Amino acid sequence: MKNLPLAKVYQLLEPGPVVLLTTARKGRANVMTMSWHMMVEFEPPLVACVVSNADYSFAALTATKECVIAIPARRLAQKVADVGNCSGRDVAKFEKSGLTPLKAKRVAAPLVAECFANLECKVVDSRLVNKYNLFVVEVLKAWIDPRQRNPKTIHHRGYGTFVVDGSTIKLKSRMR
Amino acid sequence: MKNLPLAKVYQLLEPGPVVLLTTARKGRANVMTMSWHMMVEFEPPLVACVVSNADYSFAALTATKECVIAIPARRLAQKVADVGNCSGRDVAKFEKSGLTPLKAKRVAAPLVAECFANLECKVVDSRLVNKYNLFVVEVLKAWIDPRQRNPKTIHHRGYGTFVVDGSTIKLKSRMR
Repeated sequence: MKNLPLAKVYQLLEPGPVVLLTTARKGRANVMTMSWHMMVEFEPPLVACVVSNADYSFAALTATKECVIAIPARRLAQKVADVGNCSGRDVAKFEKSGLTPLKAKRVAAPLVAECFANLECKVVDSRLVNKYNLFVVEVLKAWIDPRQRNPKTIHHRGYGTFVVDGSTIKLKSRMR
Repeated sequence: MKNLPLAKVYQLLEPGPVVLLTTARKGRANVMTMSWHMMVEFEPPLVACVVSNADYSFAALTATKECVIAIPARRLAQKVADVGNCSGRDVAKFEKSGLTPLKAKRVAAPLVAECFANLECKVVDSRLVNKYNLFVVEVLKAWIDPRQRNPKTIHHRGYGTFVVDGSTIKLKSRMR
C-alpha cells in the first residue's frame, strides 16, 4: 500500500462506490458493507456516512470514534455481498469472508488488504447520530494499492443488484 | 412523468449518480450540478447533501427550504458539465443549458423535464449547515419518466471525468 495524498480522496468516494467499513473494539475487528456515504469537504477530507444502530459496527464506531473505509473493486463483489449478509454479532466476519485485516497507522480499526484503497478515519461530528445514525468522519491517512490499476468499483441498486463502472468520459469542466 | 413510490427512491440515489439540484426564489429558477449526496433513511426517504455557501443555490435553498433533485442519464452529460461550469449569479442557467423546467407538485422549485427521475424535497434538518453546508432533506414526491428505459447514470471522478454505468450483476443478498 502506498500513501495517497489527502487532496485526492474525494475522487474515490464522490462516484458513490460500495465500500467496506471496519472497526475494532476490545481487540475484536469487524467489517460491514456500506453504501450511504458522501464527501463533505475536500481537504482535510471529511466524509458523512450512515451506520445504522441496528448494525453491530454502530457500538464500536460510537465507542472508539475510529474506522477504516475500504474500497473494493469488482472482483470482491461476492465478498462484499457476503459481508453484508451476516452480522458481526454472530460471526467473525474477517475470518468468514476471507478478507485480510492489516494494521493501520493512525487508528485501531484494520485496513482491508484486498481493497484498492483504504481510508483511516476518526469521527469528528456526532450531532446527527441520535436522530439519523449519521457520522461525520475525517480522513487522517489514505492508502492506495498501486498494483490494482484502473479498478472498477461497484454501486448498489438495492437487493444485491450492483452496477459496475463502465466507460469513462472526459468533459471540459471548471469543476474540481 | 409517472409517480414513483417513495420506498424506491433510495435505489436511484444509493449508487451515487451525479444529480441536478433546482431551486426557485422570487420567481427565479436555478439549477446546479451536485455529487455530494447520500441516502439517510429509506422511508420516508431522507437525503443528505452538501450545497456550498459559495454556490448561488445556497441562499435559495436556505431561504425557501425547498429543492428538486433531478437525475440525468448519460446523454445529458454535456449539459450537466455546462451547468456545473457557470453560476446562477451570472446567467439564467435553465435558458443557457437548454434544460426545461416543469412545474412541480409539492414545491416551488421546478422539475427538469429531460431527467429520468425527479424528487421534490423539503429541508428537514439544518443543524449541520453552518459548519459543513450539509442539508438533510425529505423527499415528498418522486417522479419517473417511463419512456427512458434502463437509463445509464454518470458518476463524477473530479475535473470533468465521469464514469458511466456499465454492466449489472445480481448477487444473493439479504441487504435491502
